Amino acid sequence: MQPKLTLQEVAKRAGVDKSTASRALNPETRSQVKAETAERVLQVAEEAGYLPNGIARGLRIKRSYTIGILVPDITNPFFPPVLRGLDDVFSGVGYQTLIANTDDDPRREKSAYQAFIERQVDGLVVGVASFQDELLDSAIASGIPVVLLNRQVGRLDVSAVCSDDESGIKLAVEHLASLGHRSIAHVAGRMESSTGFTRHRAFTYAMESLGLHPDPDLIVVSGRLTEEAGEEATLELLGRGSEMTAIVAATDMLALGCLDALEQSGLTCPDDISVVGHNDVRFANKVRPPLTTVRVPQYQLGVLAAHTLLEQMDESRKSPQTVLLQPQLIVRESTAVPRVGSSR
Amino acid sequence: MQPKLTLQEVAKRAGVDKSTASRALNPETRSQVKAETAERVLQVAEEAGYLPNGIARGLRIKRSYTIGILVPDITNPFFPPVLRGLDDVFSGVGYQTLIANTDDDPRREKSAYQAFIERQVDGLVVGVASFQDELLDSAIASGIPVVLLNRQVGRLDVSAVCSDDESGIKLAVEHLASLGHRSIAHVAGRMESSTGFTRHRAFTYAMESLGLHPDPDLIVVSGRLTEEAGEEATLELLGRGSEMTAIVAATDMLALGCLDALEQSGLTCPDDISVVGHNDVRFANKVRPPLTTVRVPQYQLGVLAAHTLLEQMDESRKSPQTVLLQPQLIVRESTAVPRVGSSR
Repeated sequence: MQPKLTLQEVAKRAGVDKSTASRALNPETRSQVKAETAERVLQVAEEAGYLPNGIARGLRIKRSYTIGILVPDITNPFFPPVLRGLDDVFSGVGYQTLIANTDDDPRREKSAYQAFIERQVDGLVVGVASFQDELLDSAIASGIPVVLLNRQVGRLDVSAVCSDDESGIKLAVEHLASLGHRSIAHVAGRMESSTGFTRHRAFTYAMESLGLHPDPDLIVVSGRLTEEAGEEATLELLGRGSEMTAIVAATDMLALGCLDALEQSGLTCPDDISVVGHNDVRFANKVRPPLTTVRVPQYQLGVLAAHTLLEQMDESRKSPQTVLLQPQLIVRESTAVPRVGSSR
Repeated sequence: MQPKLTLQEVAKRAGVDKSTASRALNPETRSQVKAETAERVLQVAEEAGYLPNGIARGLRIKRSYTIGILVPDITNPFFPPVLRGLDDVFSGVGYQTLIANTDDDPRREKSAYQAFIERQVDGLVVGVASFQDELLDSAIASGIPVVLLNRQVGRLDVSAVCSDDESGIKLAVEHLASLGHRSIAHVAGRMESSTGFTRHRAFTYAMESLGLHPDPDLIVVSGRLTEEAGEEATLELLGRGSEMTAIVAATDMLALGCLDALEQSGLTCPDDISVVGHNDVRFANKVRPPLTTVRVPQYQLGVLAAHTLLEQMDESRKSPQTVLLQPQLIVRESTAVPRVGSSR
């Protein structure tokens, strides 16, 4: 490899002064330089193998061009399309993404947060279900822009990009009611998470507004948002002996667990019990039976969260805002009219 | 927020000298300090809200505690468990992971590589199918430890962690042969990728060693490793009019595309044509029919790649090594004995 050129030498070869060369090399300030000039500087820099030293640049202009992203678990199929949307926007404007898995474990969350702060991330995307208020306070106090992803908190000092869970659950309940279901169960996510809490509240509200009494015996709160948790919750519902003809699950992973539990119990879906999921994760259309679900536009959620964070990172910093995406009901084969006589 | 303490003050409060405090706070050197002392320093640092400045530390000890990871597309379900394995090991020893999607686009790959170099990553995990030799050379020349993930190159100066594709394909072909299949097709990955190339070669070899003539008309090379590409490849096979009773697909995503094409063509799997996938991605057991496949231990692949890279990053730098993981045949419902008379 050739020895690297200094910025000064790149500037000299391109026939511009050092500050112009610097602006041209920085994606954020490039537009301040004539396009023709910027191109010449970039070409010289490219040919000479000149790479700006990211860390030194970070100290100088107080930017690391790095974004920290917290997710509970990248193997939950909801997250990869979201992360892809985030990366597509961020990498397009010169930012790279650090991704940490927290398993919703407060210690893991704190240690990932501290690791991000040490690396001087320029912004944080918080996709974990129950982010500690203490860390949120610390980020805001330090002036680090934050956007919450699929989590709403009752405060106005932080931006959030979410699916409209209330509308989503309403779509699910109304679909089942229109098929003739009256005894509808809910497998909820944990109440500490915004998704679990909002979707549970929306379930109760949607049932009541349709004149259906939401039976407390037909609601089970699952510990985690996994297939196993959905399976356990459904077995518990079935064990209670309450009659039900349909289940609204708070997520697709829980819904897949419902399907497992029904199969184990010798019941068929949708003949014995209809199931509606939430999110429309990849492969929801390929399982047996293909899952009726509420589609949350996952990739778009990532794209919008990235744009929202970039706006917060901008000098002219907008006020924090909440962006709600509209979900859509996708009817497949896991829902049908209840068997005659099975509904009470 | 309280003003941060300096390292000197943390050392003073813990009753140790500055270099001891520094060693105790660094996960890599902590073991050089008595456990009791390290704990006291960490407690003082924690209580005081002391956080080492990652960037300044990076300049001082030439470490960024950051690893760069290149993948083609995080939404390919093969990668999330691999990335989770990588993060679990790396975050356990104080490293954070930058993840970039390249779509196997050389420009995107180069720009992500440069972004990683600017951020002075301490190591690189290359999970893209066809990493440019030029970038590999540049990384090696710069002394940046690299590990290739599921990609073998014909060079001894770089470590690789892979599934044993030759054994894997042999398991698939032998399984079909033992069911009585003779006319077996192969939907291959692109030949530029190690996975595509190795699995294709292994297919030909396994067929020949069983005395089955691998018919060139029964081999189609797909452009990408997606469901759509698998669908197109299978439609092309069917269009050629060659008889076949089974398909060995180079990946599960291609296999899922095979299933789609068969359904479109009015054929059923496994009654008309058996299909074997490769990798055993999440949900391969839940599709219709549940997919017979060759399981590549994805999480373990990530864990081993992380350990291999950490060894390369160590002062006592081991020689580069290739680690081959043994895959396993998982028989589900997409394979069966061929119909009497349909095999030629």
